Amino acid sequence: MLTHPVAKGPLPDRFRALWDEITPIGRDEDSGGYLRYALTEPELRLREWFRQQADARGLPVTEDGNGNLFAWWGHRDAGNAVLTGSHFDSVPHGGAYDGPLGIVSAFLAIDELRAADVTPDRPVVVAAFVEEEGARFGVPCLGSRLLTGALDVGRAAALRDPHGVSFAEALGDRPTGAVPELLGRLGSFVELHVEQGRVLVDRDAPVAVASAIWPHGRWRFDFTGEGNHAGTTRMADRRDPMLTYAFTVLAANKEARLRDAHATVGRVAVEPNATNAIPSRVTGWLDARAAEPETLTGLVEAVHGKVTERARRDGTVVTMTEESVTPLVAFDGGLAGRLAGLLAVPVLPTGAGHDAGVLAAHVPTAMLFVRNPTGVSHSPAESATDIDCAAGVTALATVLEELACR
Amino acid sequence: MLTHPVAKGPLPDRFRALWDEITPIGRDEDSGGYLRYALTEPELRLREWFRQQADARGLPVTEDGNGNLFAWWGHRDAGNAVLTGSHFDSVPHGGAYDGPLGIVSAFLAIDELRAADVTPDRPVVVAAFVEEEGARFGVPCLGSRLLTGALDVGRAAALRDPHGVSFAEALGDRPTGAVPELLGRLGSFVELHVEQGRVLVDRDAPVAVASAIWPHGRWRFDFTGEGNHAGTTRMADRRDPMLTYAFTVLAANKEARLRDAHATVGRVAVEPNATNAIPSRVTGWLDARAAEPETLTGLVEAVHGKVTERARRDGTVVTMTEESVTPLVAFDGGLAGRLAGLLAVPVLPTGAGHDAGVLAAHVPTAMLFVRNPTGVSHSPAESATDIDCAAGVTALATVLEELACR
Repeated sequence: MLTHPVAKGPLPDRFRALWDEITPIGRDEDSGGYLRYALTEPELRLREWFRQQADARGLPVTEDGNGNLFAWWGHRDAGNAVLTGSHFDSVPHGGAYDGPLGIVSAFLAIDELRAADVTPDRPVVVAAFVEEEGARFGVPCLGSRLLTGALDVGRAAALRDPHGVSFAEALGDRPTGAVPELLGRLGSFVELHVEQGRVLVDRDAPVAVASAIWPHGRWRFDFTGEGNHAGTTRMADRRDPMLTYAFTVLAANKEARLRDAHATVGRVAVEPNATNAIPSRVTGWLDARAAEPETLTGLVEAVHGKVTERARRDGTVVTMTEESVTPLVAFDGGLAGRLAGLLAVPVLPTGAGHDAGVLAAHVPTAMLFVRNPTGVSHSPAESATDIDCAAGVTALATVLEELACR
Repeated sequence: MLTHPVAKGPLPDRFRALWDEITPIGRDEDSGGYLRYALTEPELRLREWFRQQADARGLPVTEDGNGNLFAWWGHRDAGNAVLTGSHFDSVPHGGAYDGPLGIVSAFLAIDELRAADVTPDRPVVVAAFVEEEGARFGVPCLGSRLLTGALDVGRAAALRDPHGVSFAEALGDRPTGAVPELLGRLGSFVELHVEQGRVLVDRDAPVAVASAIWPHGRWRFDFTGEGNHAGTTRMADRRDPMLTYAFTVLAANKEARLRDAHATVGRVAVEPNATNAIPSRVTGWLDARAAEPETLTGLVEAVHGKVTERARRDGTVVTMTEESVTPLVAFDGGLAGRLAGLLAVPVLPTGAGHDAGVLAAHVPTAMLFVRNPTGVSHSPAESATDIDCAAGVTALATVLEELACR
């Protein structure tokens, strides 16, 4: 039962061997990116792989009724468990590392500790959270939000994917929601993740510890005008919502740069979206993030004000709807400082949401980042070298030992 | 055989009665617009209605092997036939009048002439051209281009709709292409069409004669950048093609206004089109039109130049592809003047392409416009009053009598 893979050979080679077991799963041959939507065939194969890996290591797997999986090293009834892991699901045509790296690194870190004859005093638990990206059902961190009670069970059950399948149908049952007995047994959570920027490239460091997740949100802008013929309508007679949309894209960019914040309009829908028709309606989604909540609020208000003024000139109507706002997550300062000192690595904030941001409200939480040479993520160009991934495993093993044995 | 509807009662009422036979066909209940794509079920029902109307009037129907239908009043072998009619197909969620008004008016004009005991010396032919809008197979005026030999038969046969159905499959056979024996028998073509602007509203006139169709074209702009995470990528590290796209929309608008031309970007495609992803690629389509060819060329060159400069600043790459350009169509000046004098109505140019623009290269061609109170077209808001439509029928009957009897 407790036979498990023996850690032999250089760690970067062992990382690559394990990594290559999953690289073909859900890969789109044309883009080179991944289509690993939660609870679809590729992600279900990855979950099956998770069970096989846990089984090979003699780690019993439990489920929380919300789609999240947990593999336990050490007795499940013991308290102060050290949770690690990440998620398998991807954005459309996303990269290989965002999510799976945290799970693969967790299994390898356990192998490292066992090879060093470390026996944890507290359980070490590898998690695979469901629907972290929100790419299938529209709500990011769906699994961790359910587990922690941050999301209403009825609302989660009724979320539908683009094919009309509800989350409850995909899960096979209504989700359980908050699991206090599991949460109460956790002493800490450490999520390892590929870096989604170039800070570690600039700093020439393979690994870092996270300090905070920027507050961030999504705002939908609906621009309504008058659909009309592109060839025959005089420019002065037009009420073209595409103009107001285009202004919004540029205004959001400018206002974000002025504030050292981030603003992106990466999604648009147009009616009727025909070459020879002035659109009747354009919808754009603003993703905005900033280091401080007041900067974020100021950014969104400035964009809204300028766009409203522009709409008057265009003869269009704009309405802004806040779809989601996630407040600043400051990770446990004591824990981050302790781990950064232990590992002798930099501490840096991130603009990306993570399950760690959700768990942080309930349990001391930390994140480790592994250098990404391209700085690119949510894209097939996302990458990490085997050597840096091995450094990530070593760092994670060090952290797990610290938290589970000291 | 030659029994036919007797023209009784006020013409606006007779227009409405015939018009209401087709208003439900292909209407989308949500938008109020029409989905009458060529050779799909609603358009096939309209073609069947065309045959019934022709039959009720004792007008034999012929086909040209390209999907175009012709109903003949008078002997088919006689020369100098007077062609009239228009098309049934619509843009997505288009209006009721664009196309069908020309066909309904043609049948009613024949009724008027018969009620007045007019017997034409030359055949009067009602046409229903296929795929005028290009909304299904992507090439506008497909039927008239095939008939006149302006489009390669192999290319037309292979055009595919968004479901992968080819034009040849939809037609049931490979199209015939040019039909010289039919073209040679035509003496003139008069297409009646709803106005697609507000000039007749401004001029307080129900009907006008067309002088010309502006040169116009479609240019595709492909913007390539670097897909990346919206939350974590520093603004300075981005290569966001949505910015260059947005600049293009505003630049095209400005350059068109400076030249009294028309420019529209009404269609866009984004990859991956996700709220939290900087796009890797954005494609926009520019529709541009101007009174003179050199103005059109200058407009497109100015937009391209400014966009190329902006792309350098955005770190993106832009390529412009000319998808189609239709030169200036000057309708037969003698014919336009003669008809305008006969009807005592204004003469005006249009920015819209029509089958009349294609036929004009082969046969003296004219167009009649009927006032559109909203000025809006290619939209559910397109309209015309029954009284103005009756004025259009009267004008068309006058013109047909002039051309077929004088």
